[in-house]
Amino acid sequence: MRNLDEMTITQAVLANNSGTTDARLCAVMTSLVQHLHAFARDIKLTENEWSRGIDFLSRVGKAGSTDQQEFALLSHVLGLSTLVLAQNDKKPVGCTEAAAFHVLPEHAPIVHDLGADLSAELDGPKGYVRGAIRDVKGNPIPYASLEVSLAGGASALFQADERGQYHFSTLLPDNQRIPHDGPVGQMLTALNRHAWRPAHLEFTVSAAGYQRLTTQVFREGDPYLDSDAVFGVRSSLITEWEPQAAGMTPAGTLSREPFYTLAFDFVLAKGPVI
Amino acid sequence: MRNLDEMTITQAVLANNSGTTDARLCAVMTSLVQHLHAFARDIKLTENEWSRGIDFLSRVGKAGSTDQQEFALLSHVLGLSTLVLAQNDKKPVGCTEAAAFHVLPEHAPIVHDLGADLSAELDGPKGYVRGAIRDVKGNPIPYASLEVSLAGGASALFQADERGQYHFSTLLPDNQRIPHDGPVGQMLTALNRHAWRPAHLEFTVSAAGYQRLTTQVFREGDPYLDSDAVFGVRSSLITEWEPQAAGMTPAGTLSREPFYTLAFDFVLAKGPVI
Repeated sequence: MRNLDEMTITQAVLANNSGTTDARLCAVMTSLVQHLHAFARDIKLTENEWSRGIDFLSRVGKAGSTDQQEFALLSHVLGLSTLVLAQNDKKPVGCTEAAAFHVLPEHAPIVHDLGADLSAELDGPKGYVRGAIRDVKGNPIPYASLEVSLAGGASALFQADERGQYHFSTLLPDNQRIPHDGPVGQMLTALNRHAWRPAHLEFTVSAAGYQRLTTQVFREGDPYLDSDAVFGVRSSLITEWEPQAAGMTPAGTLSREPFYTLAFDFVLAKGPVI
Repeated sequence: MRNLDEMTITQAVLANNSGTTDARLCAVMTSLVQHLHAFARDIKLTENEWSRGIDFLSRVGKAGSTDQQEFALLSHVLGLSTLVLAQNDKKPVGCTEAAAFHVLPEHAPIVHDLGADLSAELDGPKGYVRGAIRDVKGNPIPYASLEVSLAGGASALFQADERGQYHFSTLLPDNQRIPHDGPVGQMLTALNRHAWRPAHLEFTVSAAGYQRLTTQVFREGDPYLDSDAVFGVRSSLITEWEPQAAGMTPAGTLSREPFYTLAFDFVLAKGPVI
């Protein structure tokens, strides 16, 4: 193992990694090293470029917040998250499609009663969401859990009723940029790419005996539906928010402002939770 | 750009990146995305594995010290540094081979007079190094700069004399482990790999009109010459440290302990410094 050059180095690294008893780790590392080396050879990566690459990766590691790792963001904008999700989390026909990685929330979700208003003290048009959680045959899934992701890594937890029905209100979602003041944002700028995502709500729905579903529900008409910065839009998850005139809301309150309503059913696939 | 799956996602990302006016960046990112996606597809990377991967990379970014980025270490143990060096820094026949990336030192090097002892106050056998800095035809390169890397990211700077000669003393180098208390060390353990490097001194030699040379001089007989954790050993850089009995040293001092001597000439290639 002396005098390794750009061709012989790959086999030397693979041989060195082959001592592990973890067969899956060995397979992952073998493929990783082969592709990493092929990348460097294909574009004849220079010392200066790779030094800048190491510096970029170090900055990515140090950036981000507790609820948003910058490396997760890098994975999203490089399409890797969508790829991994697509090849692992295909739901059976008729079930709601997955559209996001499940990430354990930083804090335990706050439990709310059905009908709670998550928009309290926030400005903007209100949206009233309701629907059912059911199986692919249309049977309701009583008492299923519905977690709604909120800004800042928080989440709100609802439990559907005995008929699998849920409802709550929140701010009407608007399109928004992914965090873009760090190294990933600088990369997007260098690539002449924008950081916008279409308006959406993110949900995690679970019930005993069913696969956990983490998904995003998009809003028809959003200008970023076809250029989502993280490549996550699925047609089956685009929904109509119906505009409503001021007056009585689905919650039985009187609104002096126009508001929106959304009906969306989650269809879970049978199987183990994970 | 909706409903992307594990096959269509790659082209969508490439199309999105193609708006940059930086042709080299576009080429690098195209190859990177293709290989990254192919890796994830080839081994059918799972959500859980990729979450662990993101967590590993985040920890790599946060680890390391000011003089040793953990991502540089990761690049070394994956053989990527050796690959990049080999494909960019081939020296002409007869010239001293490169064996390390040039890294700008954290602090300005400390200038020493020829003959200085870098081992002051350190315990262990002493080594006396001398040699010439010359071109491939044997002509001396007067007043060339010779930088010796020291522990902790410091370095010592010597200027060769008018005949291109240098000499100094230091501790006889011993084999040592790369930093292994961080995530890269954990990866080596999982791969059943050791973290040892053979004994070496690292030099950066430069002179106007010549390519800068960053290299490592190894010690014959070291047990890790054939299993260097970072794949850096080159036969032409393995040298004999001659053991000497206690007595008069090359510096003209009297040593009550045995010591070692090394003669090594650096042969520089003509060309721009970088």
